[in-house]
Amino acid sequence: MLIVMKHSAREDEIRRVVETIQDMGYEARPIPGRQRTAIGLIGNDGNVDADRLEGLPGVLQVIPVTRPYKQVSREWKDEPTLVTLQNGTRIGGNEIAVMAGPCSVESEPQILEIAHRLKEAGATVLRGGAFKPRTSPYAFQGLGVRGLELLARAREETGMAVVTEALDPEGVELVAQHADIIQIGARNMQNYSLLRRAGASGKPILLKRGMAAKIEELLLSAEYILAEGNGQVILCERGVRSFDNHTRNLLDLTAIPVVHALSHLPIIADPSHGTGVRAKVTPMARAAVAAGADGIMVEVHPNPNHALSDGAQSLYPEQFEDLMKQIAVIAMAIGRGLVPSLAEGKARGRGSRDRALS
Amino acid sequence: MLIVMKHSAREDEIRRVVETIQDMGYEARPIPGRQRTAIGLIGNDGNVDADRLEGLPGVLQVIPVTRPYKQVSREWKDEPTLVTLQNGTRIGGNEIAVMAGPCSVESEPQILEIAHRLKEAGATVLRGGAFKPRTSPYAFQGLGVRGLELLARAREETGMAVVTEALDPEGVELVAQHADIIQIGARNMQNYSLLRRAGASGKPILLKRGMAAKIEELLLSAEYILAEGNGQVILCERGVRSFDNHTRNLLDLTAIPVVHALSHLPIIADPSHGTGVRAKVTPMARAAVAAGADGIMVEVHPNPNHALSDGAQSLYPEQFEDLMKQIAVIAMAIGRGLVPSLAEGKARGRGSRDRALS
Amino acid sequence: MLIVMKHSAREDEIRRVVETIQDMGYEARPIPGRQRTAIGLIGNDGNVDADRLEGLPGVLQVIPVTRPYKQVSREWKDEPTLVTLQNGTRIGGNEIAVMAGPCSVESEPQILEIAHRLKEAGATVLRGGAFKPRTSPYAFQGLGVRGLELLARAREETGMAVVTEALDPEGVELVAQHADIIQIGARNMQNYSLLRRAGASGKPILLKRGMAAKIEELLLSAEYILAEGNGQVILCERGVRSFDNHTRNLLDLTAIPVVHALSHLPIIADPSHGTGVRAKVTPMARAAVAAGADGIMVEVHPNPNHALSDGAQSLYPEQFEDLMKQIAVIAMAIGRGLVPSLAEGKARGRGSRDRALS
Amino acid sequence: MLIVMKHSAREDEIRRVVETIQDMGYEARPIPGRQRTAIGLIGNDGNVDADRLEGLPGVLQVIPVTRPYKQVSREWKDEPTLVTLQNGTRIGGNEIAVMAGPCSVESEPQILEIAHRLKEAGATVLRGGAFKPRTSPYAFQGLGVRGLELLARAREETGMAVVTEALDPEGVELVAQHADIIQIGARNMQNYSLLRRAGASGKPILLKRGMAAKIEELLLSAEYILAEGNGQVILCERGVRSFDNHTRNLLDLTAIPVVHALSHLPIIADPSHGTGVRAKVTPMARAAVAAGADGIMVEVHPNPNHALSDGAQSLYPEQFEDLMKQIAVIAMAIGRGLVPSLAEGKARGRGSRDRALS
Repeated sequence: MLIVMKHSAREDEIRRVVETIQDMGYEARPIPGRQRTAIGLIGNDGNVDADRLEGLPGVLQVIPVTRPYKQVSREWKDEPTLVTLQNGTRIGGNEIAVMAGPCSVESEPQILEIAHRLKEAGATVLRGGAFKPRTSPYAFQGLGVRGLELLARAREETGMAVVTEALDPEGVELVAQHADIIQIGARNMQNYSLLRRAGASGKPILLKRGMAAKIEELLLSAEYILAEGNGQVILCERGVRSFDNHTRNLLDLTAIPVVHALSHLPIIADPSHGTGVRAKVTPMARAAVAAGADGIMVEVHPNPNHALSDGAQSLYPEQFEDLMKQIAVIAMAIGRGLVPSLAEGKARGRGSRDRALS
Repeated sequence: MLIVMKHSAREDEIRRVVETIQDMGYEARPIPGRQRTAIGLIGNDGNVDADRLEGLPGVLQVIPVTRPYKQVSREWKDEPTLVTLQNGTRIGGNEIAVMAGPCSVESEPQILEIAHRLKEAGATVLRGGAFKPRTSPYAFQGLGVRGLELLARAREETGMAVVTEALDPEGVELVAQHADIIQIGARNMQNYSLLRRAGASGKPILLKRGMAAKIEELLLSAEYILAEGNGQVILCERGVRSFDNHTRNLLDLTAIPVVHALSHLPIIADPSHGTGVRAKVTPMARAAVAAGADGIMVEVHPNPNHALSDGAQSLYPEQFEDLMKQIAVIAMAIGRGLVPSLAEGKARGRGSRDRALS
Repeated sequence: MLIVMKHSAREDEIRRVVETIQDMGYEARPIPGRQRTAIGLIGNDGNVDADRLEGLPGVLQVIPVTRPYKQVSREWKDEPTLVTLQNGTRIGGNEIAVMAGPCSVESEPQILEIAHRLKEAGATVLRGGAFKPRTSPYAFQGLGVRGLELLARAREETGMAVVTEALDPEGVELVAQHADIIQIGARNMQNYSLLRRAGASGKPILLKRGMAAKIEELLLSAEYILAEGNGQVILCERGVRSFDNHTRNLLDLTAIPVVHALSHLPIIADPSHGTGVRAKVTPMARAAVAAGADGIMVEVHPNPNHALSDGAQSLYPEQFEDLMKQIAVIAMAIGRGLVPSLAEGKARGRGSRDRALS
Repeated sequence: MLIVMKHSAREDEIRRVVETIQDMGYEARPIPGRQRTAIGLIGNDGNVDADRLEGLPGVLQVIPVTRPYKQVSREWKDEPTLVTLQNGTRIGGNEIAVMAGPCSVESEPQILEIAHRLKEAGATVLRGGAFKPRTSPYAFQGLGVRGLELLARAREETGMAVVTEALDPEGVELVAQHADIIQIGARNMQNYSLLRRAGASGKPILLKRGMAAKIEELLLSAEYILAEGNGQVILCERGVRSFDNHTRNLLDLTAIPVVHALSHLPIIADPSHGTGVRAKVTPMARAAVAAGADGIMVEVHPNPNHALSDGAQSLYPEQFEDLMKQIAVIAMAIGRGLVPSLAEGKARGRGSRDRALS
């Protein structure tokens, strides 16, 4: 941490900063410059209270040098985290995982029909909302536990892993019983009680970036989960708030290489929520893979025009099948492959690392 | 709701939109224009699923006309909501309420000392965090239940009402037992489980605007509380995310007249979190009152340089006393007054409506 | 400038940074920390090319410590700049200046009628657009030179000073001939050719903050004008881009105390463009004064519903008269006064410093 | 245009809106709804002054239905615009154009050396700044006319087309003499005098999106150029302002499919300015192509660590060569190809439409 003094700071003001740093248990090292003095704080354990220094007279600015997160940082663990699901899907390695499904679970035929088609097309993780966070209290809020049971049913039938959102502590228990991955939604990214409970479940967690969360805040929220001893965290870029409303959110794909540089955790992209418009989902899914995403999460509905939620951003199954072909080639262009398909006779075409090695 | 068709939309595409609207149980009224046709949806009960229409072929745009919130809207209840606390403080009428106190409750002497000074200066509501939501899992998280007990103690001694934050369902129960107002923080503005639980408590709720929440979303979150039968809601502007980092957040004071135009709920401003810098708190507190805020919430610490959290944005007690004098005059300039002081011999100088009437 | 090395940076990488700094003509001072080394660059003349250092291997981050602007900075000139106009209006001292008028000059009767009313109400500077920058090429673009002549005519008749916008180099010449203050609009804040030309004119300049300009960038644009030897610069906050569209822009009133802390230049606020909605102009004008603005700029039209541009944000003359009364009291609350009125018999009521001293 | 009345609007207020619309020369069609009345304005020629209607009593909101731009709109010209340069590069068709070069022209050896390498790698357009808009008046401002001459020299030697920025009217003349494409930078996107002058030059224009410009505003700025009779406009996404500073700007790649849906003009992406960090340029360039960009513009410097500007975001030549190989495959994945190389023996490997047809 660097404490920059004002041009006009007096000797006694500088001395007081030095003494305060020492009083806090750290070492102070003044660096006189031509225009002003700066004071280095040595021994920062990530827990220094900058407020106390910022408020002192003569201080212009306090600049953090050490990053506030630890366990999620690539500085302390260089090899990438690999999240491995029971059906063999691995997220965070060379393979790109595809998670797909409807916004909400609506009925048994709906979820089973779409699960089969998605599996055939090569997706290995099924998404579907059972508990839905809705901006309006009067909107459809999901089927709840019944929705979880239907997802579990689809998993049995197809072998796909299941990811679905938990909204509160009780939800964490229920989702942990039925799903492979617990999703924490964007609105709850800084719901710390929920993060701790999800961390304590021991299950893989999909943590979505908040609507206006800085990357550093996303990593700090992940740190809450790791601090519970749970390292199986997948981050997800899903668009941030912007001044323009040409799409629902502004998909920040640069977050992908940025996270890869700062952290060992895998990161995927959700172009469905990230754009909110069906016609933009396919180009942005391709772009996410080209930017280096470890996976994508896409909404697909057997009949988007009758979806109970988010129909306008759901792909038709045929569009999803085309997308899978395009991203297989793009993955190849950057030396990666897709997670091998669960469908018989499909694995061959994908070019994943494993098959390459076999 | 208005469905705008593309310039190139064909007759059968228009017909399909009309039929879909009818199928959804509403009336459709096509409005042919010179460049394109638009179709009005009549009978919107606030629950129309725009997604289903947006996805139809030939549709350019779906424009909501009806607002998605109901009970919070001034359209349906014109007279302002008045939140009345046990100590006589009224929020939402002609009087301006002042809530003040440290960021966190730290110890019994700290909270008692500051409470007495604040009461003397004219504040009638004491703020202080017992459960603290912190971006980093390693930062000070508050004294918890012990903090609540100390706040209750300060209330007994001074007569001030108490406002403090609840982070999760259990927190709601505890805070409801000890405080006059339950605060929902910015990070939890869309934590719908928490909103419902807080609503069900029957206590007055202080709902802070999320870091990137539109006013409409703030009102929809308030709607969750009203939908539980609890109309005692105070909104709070506390700064939003911005591209500039000259202050921690960008205090959006225009939100005050905007909320007053859209809703009957009172709105206050928090210039301490809204700026994050002590030297900006006083000017922005004055500006909030001048903009028409129904109250302000300000951090004051007996010794800011030793605060356990947010010291850099806490006022010194003397600064707070000066601020109180300035806002009393500004309130007068717009025909309002401050909530009468609880301190003996202070009420006289405030110019509140009550004294004006006596 | 501080160059922060990666945790994993090797000795030779650190050495290379040191040598590069020396090669650039500055002194390097390494500061070994517990987690990583930082290297101070000493002797920064505000002209160091950070890019060259950022690109070196092992470098995590380059942190500027010296500010990039000079002449506008309060660090180098502590007393406030006072911009004095021929009619005696002073901007940047204890008095608050009021600039008012229609968005566009439309006709001789329009501008003369409104100028007289504004003068009576106490405004001393007349605003009015002759050259209008419009988002659409098909919108009304102003009366041009004829508009300038009408403004000059209104000045002769009323004694008010005139401020109006220049859009390009030729416009600067013309405006300089007819007006007291040359306005540089938000869209041109980084039009450096225009800034230089305006600076060279020697006239007082009103520089509006760009729609997404950081305060630092606003100050750097002002620096372009001062670098031409012209210190008569007034800054203007007029709202920035936001994710919410409840008002046209988000008026960032905190910019006022921020600018006052960083620079000796005066800053005013424009709540008309800053909100874009008539009903929000009065509360935000009051708030600007309460926040410490050195003046306000407000659109007033004799008949807003027939204005050729920006009618929806123009005050009625009666509204403006009420506003003047309110801000006179608010100014008093913070120990300031309004610029004395040019209207006979009006000066007495204002409580400006001069009269207070007499 | 739709004028939405308040729930409480009276009959006479509705009548006044109808009469005002008729007075403006349009047709009014009231649409009574269950909750409120809306009034359609028929015959909008793109020139309706919404302000006049917004200000009327009883009006809740004015919603534009017709888009404010015309000539750039895909609604009025469906086939894509193809910008064709003298060296055969075509932008806006099936081929993807690559523009590359240093941020600034620094010297004859620098620009010639890099031009040859870029041509060998397959780029067909050379970028390089001669006039540089710099945030600080004290930063390197480019070689000026000498820079233009060096670019022309490089064109002669290599056959590459040249794109470079003009900052003001005189600059337009000079750039038009030496370059194939005149660039209008982000800071000047709404410098309407400059847009008109550039349009009148008749040269192809590269128009960069402003730092906080909505897509609609970008298209309206392009409309200024087309209104001068110049249809040869290439749009460029180069990142927008964001609340996060993990990269210099937030590259909004969704703008690419959005522009393609709204306009017939080609759009390219500039990942160098869009990220500001060398390590993010390659992934985001790939992502831009995958998202459907008609080209990319990339900074490459023979020796980035000694660049006079923007060194930290410039690729090494080897990195650029790798990038070219990756995007050739990605282009293929979406049925496109790169513009054929100018280098002998290179054209064969690209898979462009022409060869596909031969």
